[in-house]
Amino acid sequence: MSRPEPLGNTRRMSLNTATVREQWNLEQCVDGCLRHGVPAISPWRDKLQAFGVQRAARLFADNGLTVSGLCRAGFFAAPDAAGRQKALDDCRIAVDEAAEIGAQSLCILAGGLAEGSKDLGDAHGMVRDGLAELLDYARTADVNLGIEPLHPMYAADRACVNTLRHANDLCDDLGDGIGVLIDVYHLWWDPQLAMEIARAGRHPGRILGFHVSDWLVPTRDLLTDRGMMGDGVIDIPRLRGWVEFAGYDGYIEVEIFSAENWWKRDGDDVMTVATQRFASVI
Amino acid sequence: MSRPEPLGNTRRMSLNTATVREQWNLEQCVDGCLRHGVPAISPWRDKLQAFGVQRAARLFADNGLTVSGLCRAGFFAAPDAAGRQKALDDCRIAVDEAAEIGAQSLCILAGGLAEGSKDLGDAHGMVRDGLAELLDYARTADVNLGIEPLHPMYAADRACVNTLRHANDLCDDLGDGIGVLIDVYHLWWDPQLAMEIARAGRHPGRILGFHVSDWLVPTRDLLTDRGMMGDGVIDIPRLRGWVEFAGYDGYIEVEIFSAENWWKRDGDDVMTVATQRFASVI
Repeated sequence: MSRPEPLGNTRRMSLNTATVREQWNLEQCVDGCLRHGVPAISPWRDKLQAFGVQRAARLFADNGLTVSGLCRAGFFAAPDAAGRQKALDDCRIAVDEAAEIGAQSLCILAGGLAEGSKDLGDAHGMVRDGLAELLDYARTADVNLGIEPLHPMYAADRACVNTLRHANDLCDDLGDGIGVLIDVYHLWWDPQLAMEIARAGRHPGRILGFHVSDWLVPTRDLLTDRGMMGDGVIDIPRLRGWVEFAGYDGYIEVEIFSAENWWKRDGDDVMTVATQRFASVI
Repeated sequence: MSRPEPLGNTRRMSLNTATVREQWNLEQCVDGCLRHGVPAISPWRDKLQAFGVQRAARLFADNGLTVSGLCRAGFFAAPDAAGRQKALDDCRIAVDEAAEIGAQSLCILAGGLAEGSKDLGDAHGMVRDGLAELLDYARTADVNLGIEPLHPMYAADRACVNTLRHANDLCDDLGDGIGVLIDVYHLWWDPQLAMEIARAGRHPGRILGFHVSDWLVPTRDLLTDRGMMGDGVIDIPRLRGWVEFAGYDGYIEVEIFSAENWWKRDGDDVMTVATQRFASVI
């Protein structure tokens, strides 16, 4: 397929609140979206809970902001049944929150190995079983679960689902109401990515989101050194082309963890650069 | 398959000289192997060249050390033909060095993206073509090329071959004289790993090496924070079982990059711990 033209505007942009995590509370994020012409938001649960979930739902609605997603729940693997139940209980709260704010999906991180365990296969099984149980609940709440495969460097402690293939396999197994979130930062390196995006596209509605940031060279920290779109090595337009060819035309979330750079700048400066880059380089 | 028993001794241990990179020169590495009952060595080219290649060949032979591998060559992608030729020229020197010291294989790192490029597919193609050209030369020198897939966090700048599947695909494509090096640190997270190890095992001689260290939680640096075997989360015996079931019974290299811990300790202390762990936990 041909490489897509730059978007030229921010009509499909969503602000993942992690991008200005250190600068703004939820209300400031909403105001920032309005000031910078960003029509959608994807809040993290800490900011959401700090503001109040019902109050946030009204804030988003009153300001005409679409809620493209809610970050995050999951972390299914645990050493015992009580730990697994605790994880599921938190996931159900997150489903309720996502329903309350009308989020288009709830972002699911698989979680890593169970504490004290080296059994990756066992963790994969607990993720699958946890998702199956959560999905029953999410369907009744009419909330879509979006599995976000994370970069393999997070396999031990954040998510042991690290490829889109694995996420697609889980979706095939579990049926309706669950899909995938495709984040270029986590998946750009995978030679099977184009094929797996096409595979996801064969199931209408499976692709629930597309997240952008960039991979910096060098990367100085495993967690908090993501780059602004255009500052790294990811061929974001190519990946956007694959996702759009697969049928996804929804919001594109800007999600940048950057302790030493973007989190230290003024929030409006970050938004100015992010919206410019959104329009021109992704 | 059943989980293998601990090895109980160091008869299959090889010292990758990176493990004591900051403490010892090549001669000290050889002496250390002899003192600690380690029968094989895998030198890096910097230490080898500093000592002299012919002289090192005699040193290894005179002391009865097997040379399990030579690290490293590759880095095929470059922006222009001159750059690609320069990379190949260096690879041919590495093949000559591997032949001179009788290394069981030459460790090949694919290299990352070409400088200034975001085209991952193009880099993959340059790696494939570079390997094909190098392989002609390596066959005449009777040197085995061992592709080492690196962790995906190195895709941009060190190796854009990040899964055993990709390495197996390259071997299928390129024919005899090229195989794979399986390093638990780079590959432990991959849900396809068991299957791809079995696939490699269907080709006698394809598995050219097995490298061990450990994945620490948290990992504080992308390059130099590997753990000693047993200190992290990798189920090394399970992976060793897969490799041995696939027919590999050769040397197992201990390769630990650890700027803040093991590289700061006395070399003999590192060897004492490494040999104990080799016998008991892998």
